[in-house]
Amino acid sequence: MIVHILSTGDEVVLGDIADTNAAWLCRAMKELGLSVQRITAVGDEIEQISSVLREISGKADICLVTGGLGPTSDDVTALAFSRAAGVALQTDCQALASMQSYFKKRGYELTQDNEKQALLPVGSQVLTNHAGTAPGFYRTLNRCLFFFMPGVPAEMKLMLEKEVVPVLKERYGLDGAILLERLTVFGLGESRAGSLLNGFHEQFPGLRLGFRADFPVIEVKIILPHVSGTKETDRSLMDQAKQWAMDRLENKVVSDKGLSLAQEVGRLLSARGKTLAIAESCTGGLISSMMTDVAGSSDYFLFSAVTYSNEAKIKILNVREKTLLDHGAVHERTALEMAEGVRLKTGADFGISTTGIAGPGGGSPEKPVGMVCVGLAGDGVSLAKTYRFTLDDRAMNKTIFAHTALDLLRRHLTGLLKAS
Amino acid sequence: MIVHILSTGDEVVLGDIADTNAAWLCRAMKELGLSVQRITAVGDEIEQISSVLREISGKADICLVTGGLGPTSDDVTALAFSRAAGVALQTDCQALASMQSYFKKRGYELTQDNEKQALLPVGSQVLTNHAGTAPGFYRTLNRCLFFFMPGVPAEMKLMLEKEVVPVLKERYGLDGAILLERLTVFGLGESRAGSLLNGFHEQFPGLRLGFRADFPVIEVKIILPHVSGTKETDRSLMDQAKQWAMDRLENKVVSDKGLSLAQEVGRLLSARGKTLAIAESCTGGLISSMMTDVAGSSDYFLFSAVTYSNEAKIKILNVREKTLLDHGAVHERTALEMAEGVRLKTGADFGISTTGIAGPGGGSPEKPVGMVCVGLAGDGVSLAKTYRFTLDDRAMNKTIFAHTALDLLRRHLTGLLKAS
Repeated sequence: MIVHILSTGDEVVLGDIADTNAAWLCRAMKELGLSVQRITAVGDEIEQISSVLREISGKADICLVTGGLGPTSDDVTALAFSRAAGVALQTDCQALASMQSYFKKRGYELTQDNEKQALLPVGSQVLTNHAGTAPGFYRTLNRCLFFFMPGVPAEMKLMLEKEVVPVLKERYGLDGAILLERLTVFGLGESRAGSLLNGFHEQFPGLRLGFRADFPVIEVKIILPHVSGTKETDRSLMDQAKQWAMDRLENKVVSDKGLSLAQEVGRLLSARGKTLAIAESCTGGLISSMMTDVAGSSDYFLFSAVTYSNEAKIKILNVREKTLLDHGAVHERTALEMAEGVRLKTGADFGISTTGIAGPGGGSPEKPVGMVCVGLAGDGVSLAKTYRFTLDDRAMNKTIFAHTALDLLRRHLTGLLKAS
Repeated sequence: MIVHILSTGDEVVLGDIADTNAAWLCRAMKELGLSVQRITAVGDEIEQISSVLREISGKADICLVTGGLGPTSDDVTALAFSRAAGVALQTDCQALASMQSYFKKRGYELTQDNEKQALLPVGSQVLTNHAGTAPGFYRTLNRCLFFFMPGVPAEMKLMLEKEVVPVLKERYGLDGAILLERLTVFGLGESRAGSLLNGFHEQFPGLRLGFRADFPVIEVKIILPHVSGTKETDRSLMDQAKQWAMDRLENKVVSDKGLSLAQEVGRLLSARGKTLAIAESCTGGLISSMMTDVAGSSDYFLFSAVTYSNEAKIKILNVREKTLLDHGAVHERTALEMAEGVRLKTGADFGISTTGIAGPGGGSPEKPVGMVCVGLAGDGVSLAKTYRFTLDDRAMNKTIFAHTALDLLRRHLTGLLKAS
């Protein structure tokens, strides 16, 4: 089965974005047991798209196309396909109805531009968009079955999972993953996680491993692609494989159910009936935003103070002026007083804190960009730790600092901290 | 001039990495005034590479190829090109000498595997690798001039800048750059922005519009794809087109330089020498995190309080208990007291606040999920506004609430608020 991917969009060939959609689709195909032979990207030019569609139609069996399904004038993929196939566009009633209901639910009027999105090449079948307005479609041209999806990653991913994969499975008898386990891993790079799991395939020849990096976390998937025994023996095989992987990845496994770090910390706090307050300096509100992305977080998350200035650290968190004078803002002592301060201020069970240098400026030889002090107070614990990362990017530093602080609390809550 | 890019490597088609080399090369070509028509990626299979090289040789004038020049058995690009061109490989003395000196300098022995890297297709010219061992090369096949570079980003980038660009400039007399303007737009969907700009192509037939949605913001790009007049007339055409678009998009244009909303608010605060403090309830730290993603934000961003609980609103922000009892937490009165409270607490010039229902729970008929009250205090202004959104997703609600609050401040800072 020859699989191609075609990404359309000026943003790709102008270099505004790296084509992460294509990478994601390659991994999704791998999970189905398919390998992608070629990826092509072209801009929003109808002639270009239509000529590359014709080329692919003679080479590939399956082609996943993304982009160009929106309502604006540069969204020309359906038209390009209709030219390549020599068929007309016609309004698809199912697509129109689904857009109408999407808009009605949100109290908007359907515009003429949106109606354009329901114009599909004759002979196409609709793929429902579960996260936006633009419907997708699929249709055969020459030897190739083309799937057209939006370029917006969230819309594309849902459409692939809910709409495209079922069609592929049915048409080609692909059974994909029968059983799937997800481990969320923090504190290991993808290649390191890969080496730790060397020997997996020898140990569990019927299973497959998948890796997906979502900085700074990686998701390790254990996949049973085909029924191999009875339901019970398959389940037990998966359990063994999961345990084998967890033993090798040790305390780097944040969740054995694929939860995010914030979800897992929230789950642990909830289960123990504990509350949390946060004092953030260099993470600038990111920890708090991660925690409050979780529905129901108001049950355990009380308060976060983003104290960039020394004055705010003193005034809001009761950090001692002397500490700041003696040690500076980026110091374990300061981190500790921040964590204790925010906990006492709010009566939360736990306080966590961050103070560090996210960059690009502000670094020094003793306190370089990438250094962070994390504090944890409460429940009889009062500690601070220093970590050093070597990333060049401010946003990445904020992200890894925030994860490091939450992971410290996670390890305390699960009793791993004393052990490590 | 038709430019193609070819990325080779299993890691690309397996989805292990996003193809950032291609994005970087597209930007580099744009700076030279060239636009890339197509990007292709294939794995490390000699047949695949050789067949795509043949295809490109009949379509493109210039092709930049990356990957497959290393010493291992999966590095097959030179061999694939020699097959595509029907010429033999021979040891290139210049390449060999440059590798020998690279190794000598570092005290290593040249291995046989490395010597393989000096085997180039007959008729090629060497491109020096300034950061590693694998030499590149360039050679014409059919209509196309192919440049072969390593896949390691640092090596590829240096080779492009120091070796490839000079050849391109000399051969094709390149010096210009195509022109590109970016407008950041908030408060309009992609389709609505598209309709407002209907007529653009009739007005400016030589230019192209691009749209890229990055929820809840869209970027509108105005593109001059080919040099059409002199440098001055092209510039003036772009300025006219930009003004035309901005007139139609009105106060929804957050930045005419492609800045994010947080960057633009930061820029406005900086320029006016003003400081900001934030009181967040439903946005949970997201506004603060957006603001602190901007390097240098410590100059104007003082403090943010994420006050989920009523208790924290009272204790930290001095919201009156009576206000919460009379009106509840989600109310303009509360938003106003939060904004005033955080401003007074920190001595900031401006305070902004959010209180609302991000969902999925917590909604009621009077205060449904998607409702947010935003407060703004300082600089003689004291106001609160209520907005209602109809998104199903908690994270999306947080995102649009945060943008709404920052946009209110932006409009105040630019004098748009009184006008609207």
